[in-house]
Amino acid sequence: MNVAVLLFDNFETLDVYGPVEVFGRLVVLYAIKFYSLIGGQIKNHHGVSVQTEKLEDIHDDTEIFLIPGGIGTRKEVENKLLLDKIIEVSNHSKYVLTVCTGSALLAKTGLLDGKRATSNKRAFSWVITNGSNVLWDKKARWTTDGKYYTSSGVSAGIDMALGFLNDRYGIDFARRVALEIEYNWTEDKDEDKFIAD
Amino acid sequence: MNVAVLLFDNFETLDVYGPVEVFGRLVVLYAIKFYSLIGGQIKNHHGVSVQTEKLEDIHDDTEIFLIPGGIGTRKEVENKLLLDKIIEVSNHSKYVLTVCTGSALLAKTGLLDGKRATSNKRAFSWVITNGSNVLWDKKARWTTDGKYYTSSGVSAGIDMALGFLNDRYGIDFARRVALEIEYNWTEDKDEDKFIAD
Repeated sequence: MNVAVLLFDNFETLDVYGPVEVFGRLVVLYAIKFYSLIGGQIKNHHGVSVQTEKLEDIHDDTEIFLIPGGIGTRKEVENKLLLDKIIEVSNHSKYVLTVCTGSALLAKTGLLDGKRATSNKRAFSWVITNGSNVLWDKKARWTTDGKYYTSSGVSAGIDMALGFLNDRYGIDFARRVALEIEYNWTEDKDEDKFIAD
Repeated sequence: MNVAVLLFDNFETLDVYGPVEVFGRLVVLYAIKFYSLIGGQIKNHHGVSVQTEKLEDIHDDTEIFLIPGGIGTRKEVENKLLLDKIIEVSNHSKYVLTVCTGSALLAKTGLLDGKRATSNKRAFSWVITNGSNVLWDKKARWTTDGKYYTSSGVSAGIDMALGFLNDRYGIDFARRVALEIEYNWTEDKDEDKFIAD
């Protein structure tokens, strides 16, 4: 099963590599590839650089489309070409997962209209301006609504990825992965210590 | 201040990008670069690929030398050229931090002899064969001993990086970073849920 990770300049490092660690170690189940709108080298403010393929080169159906957040989303929510591609890839993906402010990008496409979603708690007031018809959940480690999963800030992407495994393969399986990566997993998606006032 | 991250084939994804997230977002303080023994593209079993510079091209003194773990360490502990380079770079680094089985690599150089160290709890019996004079701590989220920091498995690298910030800049500073990345930080380095029997 293919996991397509969307990258854009100034994505948040751990938004990407937290879930990549979780899905990546299940190498028998998932194959991970990195994409961007025009392909090539994508960089972020942490000094991380990644070679990507073009989003239009995704031909097979995608099992998981992962959309990270990061300061780059502030610019990308205005990138009509990228938003159109996100709609196209999302429609051909079985599941769409966002981390942190990645939900702002997905909200801006309209695909989250009428659906429950969350985001980084310290960027929440900005995020929600990108989708007035989204059922924003201010207190959640992550949310699920049909094929859409959205997580809270940065590290919460790991909790969501483990929650995704729980939903597909059961709690014992998900707990084993959490144990292998020695992660203090918040198993309850509604348990959120980081809610802002 | 320079953070030099050592990479080798089949490094563990989150061992690297957990601490990179923590130090990377302190962009005013730290500049992160990725290195390997012979430079070029380094790949791992999660589908992650990184362009690296040669270790011998580190000329300036390094503030933090970060050594990740991963299945690749099983091979690299026999790589004499790499071990020699690790000694050289460690001696020119103010601090040396290992994550997961990265402590096996550092132990094999002899630099951890007589010092406290820990590692991944599910690989512990193998790790300790790489350094019989190391004071291995079986129950620790991370350890500190002089300039050396070693963490438990995978996610524990994030806790250690935050602990490092605590030691340098105080608890309020470290807690603020943990809050920004919405990470449930284990603040006490001796609190370890993942101890194996």
